Amino acid sequence: MNYTETYERYLRSAEEAIQNTCRRMEFHPSVLGESMRYSLLAGGKRIRPVLFFAVCDALGADAKQESDFAVALECIHTYSLIHDDLPAMDNDDFRRGKPSNHKVFGEANAILAGDALLSFAFDLLLAACERGPRQRAAARCLSRAAGAEGMIAGQSADLYFSEHGASESDLLELYRNKTARLLSAPVEMGAILADGDTAAAREFGEALGILFQMTDDLLDEKGESAKVGKTLGKDKAENKLTCVRIYGLERSEDLADQYAERCTKAILKLAGENEFFLSLIKSVRSRDH
Amino acid sequence: MNYTETYERYLRSAEEAIQNTCRRMEFHPSVLGESMRYSLLAGGKRIRPVLFFAVCDALGADAKQESDFAVALECIHTYSLIHDDLPAMDNDDFRRGKPSNHKVFGEANAILAGDALLSFAFDLLLAACERGPRQRAAARCLSRAAGAEGMIAGQSADLYFSEHGASESDLLELYRNKTARLLSAPVEMGAILADGDTAAAREFGEALGILFQMTDDLLDEKGESAKVGKTLGKDKAENKLTCVRIYGLERSEDLADQYAERCTKAILKLAGENEFFLSLIKSVRSRDH
Repeated sequence: MNYTETYERYLRSAEEAIQNTCRRMEFHPSVLGESMRYSLLAGGKRIRPVLFFAVCDALGADAKQESDFAVALECIHTYSLIHDDLPAMDNDDFRRGKPSNHKVFGEANAILAGDALLSFAFDLLLAACERGPRQRAAARCLSRAAGAEGMIAGQSADLYFSEHGASESDLLELYRNKTARLLSAPVEMGAILADGDTAAAREFGEALGILFQMTDDLLDEKGESAKVGKTLGKDKAENKLTCVRIYGLERSEDLADQYAERCTKAILKLAGENEFFLSLIKSVRSRDH
Repeated sequence: MNYTETYERYLRSAEEAIQNTCRRMEFHPSVLGESMRYSLLAGGKRIRPVLFFAVCDALGADAKQESDFAVALECIHTYSLIHDDLPAMDNDDFRRGKPSNHKVFGEANAILAGDALLSFAFDLLLAACERGPRQRAAARCLSRAAGAEGMIAGQSADLYFSEHGASESDLLELYRNKTARLLSAPVEMGAILADGDTAAAREFGEALGILFQMTDDLLDEKGESAKVGKTLGKDKAENKLTCVRIYGLERSEDLADQYAERCTKAILKLAGENEFFLSLIKSVRSRDH
């Protein structure tokens, strides 16, 4: 099976798990569940669940039995997008080519949909805690990656440094928290569940996350992003911190190559079966997927 | 020790636990921790942690060892207030006599402070899960009370019914979800940790929560609320659903008496030592505290 076929297989597992869980998102009044599902089912590459399934497979954890971790990851990612898109934050009217949550359901409902998805994700994690100590460690790992010492610190830093300016090290810390922690979490969780090398997992996951954010910035800068609504709200775009703005285009490309190299070294340590991941690294570096 | 002294003692335990935990809320950039602590340390009656400590004491759970549940309760209550006060929600400029979170830190930071407090609360719960099955059950109880089938459903219903109008049963369901679930959670958690009568705990907690919301509405209606900033943003106050608006003043007072009676019956089932709770019920009914 080639890279694309394997990615598609993991993507189908992710979609299936997400859709099965969505059936439980029926609340009264119905608008709450509708707004949660609207954003959760809006598609995307599902890279976090895909990474989780791939690492479980490569290291020997039972991905199917642990699929609620994949769903929790996507719920947390989705809540962060809903809140990010709000007028007070990035003020984005579109997300993945569709009107953003608050454009459809209003700001108040969008705030609650985000809160509810975050709460729902943690409820899945708490339920998984019954299964054993590895599951409890995996749940803690995601919790720390998503919280005030992880993703939310990154979002806060994004606000702060966009206003006050950032040094090179500020930008890297911002990338690590805002993007890399939640991309590393599925890799680390898979390693925890399989009793694998968690240090190598974190090395790979964080380097991949930083690479992901850098190539995102490079795409934006080179105007190659074809995705409607992927661009920032106009009023915020001017101040947006990107690696290109801090390092210049050439050094950013060099840095991206360095992070791709780091990913490669770490994955060789982490997993014997690493073909899929080596292709994934190339795909993220070149953004050809 | 009389009722007030006992309340003060539990309140001190709550403040101590909250302040100890706040020391860990140091993140980079510092504004994130500052905004979290600003609201978490704004005082208030801390009725949820107080109830938790009181029930643990009465039923024989080790309240001191389980105090992170009390902190998690207050973090969740505080996040809900921060998000509720946002311009898109109730648009309140003041909370407990102080400018609300978004007036001090801006809307974007307030959204993140709320997200971070919710995440922090769940991280405390996940850490508690290591201690054993009772702690895991208590954590799940709080998670369900706070999430999309509990408090958030209530907030969503509040938005919905304020716009579309509500029947008597809609209002009671709204009260149960918006207020009673999170007031019942500390009672139920204490009972779970002490291996007590969880059905009686829920009966008491939910009736107390509904009583609490009703007497709040009655106070508002009678204009006796002395608390600055306790009133709703003006643009929302007109549509606000209250029991007085649905049932009229007299029937609301009757209903409040009925719920106080239910509380009393349930607490007699739940706890042998119930003096404190009987006084608490009277105090919530008359709002003299």
